[in-house]
Amino acid sequence: MQINILLYDRMTALDAVGPYEVLSRFPGNEVRFVAEKAGPVRTDTGYLTLVADSSLDEAPTADIVLVPGGYAPPLTPGPIHEWLRAADAISTWTTSVCVGSLILGVAGLLTGRRATSHWMALDHLRDYGAEPTAERVVFDGKYATAAGVSSGIDMALALLGKVFGPEAAMTVQLGIEYDPQPPFRAGSPATAPDPIVTFLRENRDLVVQL
Amino acid sequence: MQINILLYDRMTALDAVGPYEVLSRFPGNEVRFVAEKAGPVRTDTGYLTLVADSSLDEAPTADIVLVPGGYAPPLTPGPIHEWLRAADAISTWTTSVCVGSLILGVAGLLTGRRATSHWMALDHLRDYGAEPTAERVVFDGKYATAAGVSSGIDMALALLGKVFGPEAAMTVQLGIEYDPQPPFRAGSPATAPDPIVTFLRENRDLVVQL
Repeated sequence: MQINILLYDRMTALDAVGPYEVLSRFPGNEVRFVAEKAGPVRTDTGYLTLVADSSLDEAPTADIVLVPGGYAPPLTPGPIHEWLRAADAISTWTTSVCVGSLILGVAGLLTGRRATSHWMALDHLRDYGAEPTAERVVFDGKYATAAGVSSGIDMALALLGKVFGPEAAMTVQLGIEYDPQPPFRAGSPATAPDPIVTFLRENRDLVVQL
Repeated sequence: MQINILLYDRMTALDAVGPYEVLSRFPGNEVRFVAEKAGPVRTDTGYLTLVADSSLDEAPTADIVLVPGGYAPPLTPGPIHEWLRAADAISTWTTSVCVGSLILGVAGLLTGRRATSHWMALDHLRDYGAEPTAERVVFDGKYATAAGVSSGIDMALALLGKVFGPEAAMTVQLGIEYDPQPPFRAGSPATAPDPIVTFLRENRDLVVQL
């Protein structure tokens, strides 16, 4: 399968690299990183550059399209959203990680659909006619949305399981030794200590800017 | 703190990007990606280019050094290992993900120490005088080693907890919504179905080349 992953300035690296690491490891899958212009893209922390190998115009036809989140994601309708509508018209799966779902929303692709996003951005899905769903990975038809940043790994494994079967997904999971053992219990607002949830809500620009 | 992450051709992207995403998000931390030569580095699948902003010679003095794994990791003593010994002489923490621990081993930094690596490479640690330890994250003195690919996220959170306290680590964990929910139970040879473990052992070049 051909998988196109969108890059843009100030995107969050793990949103893209988590699913890439899963999806690219299944034999026969090919991944292309694409952006408005081919070339370097700086991630949100300012410390890492990823390279887009194709501009949107040059991107191959893709079976799977993936949109990562980022700091100040592109929410003003423009070329990215036009490209997403065209890519979605021929994709088998259209997917997002973190506030990437809001970008899909701006493109008009989540109207009437259940979807998720970073926990702090979840309610914004309503602005685009989607139904906010506080789950880590949400499938609705051909649309798969994942919660914040690290959740793209879970979404990509679930997608691999749907497309190629559970054995395919388990082989990749064992290959990347995805046997998570977080040293703390703080990965969601339901489990993190209240003061930490409150701190992030009051300093949300540390995490996401909308 | 200054964190230097080593890049090299055919490295595994998630080994570096997982810990980067954790460590770079704590205020005051700075991350530099370094390689033998500054410039683009292609990852092991061939689909992604990361950019090293500094050559080894230009790398800033670092408190934390991190070495990712990869396909065909550099195990012949050379400039990378010389640089690692010099960096280790002044680091507070010297760390690795996946077969990055073997690179530390070649540099002579794990002699007599407990360490981990990708499950399929674990025994190779003995070649460098280290004690293979089948745990996801192993701390021995100032050395922190993590198991395969995705384990760098757990290691980086544990390290952040040790250096800045549990609240710091939990804040980052909630920020990146690290509440893993793997859709399958196959992330370690202890939990994956036997046929999948056997398949990967017999096709190890799909995962790691040593």
